[in-house]
Amino acid sequence: MRAKIFVKLKASVLDPQGKTIHQAVQTLGYRGIEDIRQGKYFEIALSDSLTRDEAWAMLDRLAREVLSNPVIEEYRVELEETS
Amino acid sequence: MRAKIFVKLKASVLDPQGKTIHQAVQTLGYRGIEDIRQGKYFEIALSDSLTRDEAWAMLDRLAREVLSNPVIEEYRVELEETS
Repeated sequence: MRAKIFVKLKASVLDPQGKTIHQAVQTLGYRGIEDIRQGKYFEIALSDSLTRDEAWAMLDRLAREVLSNPVIEEYRVELEETS
Repeated sequence: MRAKIFVKLKASVLDPQGKTIHQAVQTLGYRGIEDIRQGKYFEIALSDSLTRDEAWAMLDRLAREVLSNPVIEEYRVELEETS
C-alpha cells in the first residue's frame, strides 16, 4: 500500500520562501503567476500487513505528530486505492 | 486558475532525508512503514488572463527550468479544472 502526506503552511502564515521564488520567477520573465507557495510531501510505502483503517490512523498520527507543525502548518493524507 | 507542481528525486537517486525520517519514525515506534521519500510541491495561483494551453506550457517550462533539477529530479504538473 502506498500513501502520500502533504504538508503546507496555513493560509494565514507568511511564506517567505514561496515569496522569494515568486519574485525570482518574475525576474526571469515568467508572466501570469500571481502567487507561489511551497509545501512538502512524503511518499510512504506501507507494509501490506496493515489494514486500511490501521494505515489511516497511523498516517494521520504521523502527519500530526511528526511531519507537520500544527501551529503553523496543515496536512492532508492520501491513501492509494489497493488493487 | 490554480496549479500544483510536484518535484521529487528520481527513484534511482538516494534520498538521505527520507531515509533519516524513516529511521526516526521507526525509533518513535511507528510500525508498518517500509519507506519514506520526501518531495516538495508548489501551489501556484495563475492570472485568469492565461488560456489553459498557455498555462500548461508555462508551468512545464517553470517546472523544468526553475523548480526542479532534471539531472536528479522529476516533476509533475497539475492544473486545476476551471469552473
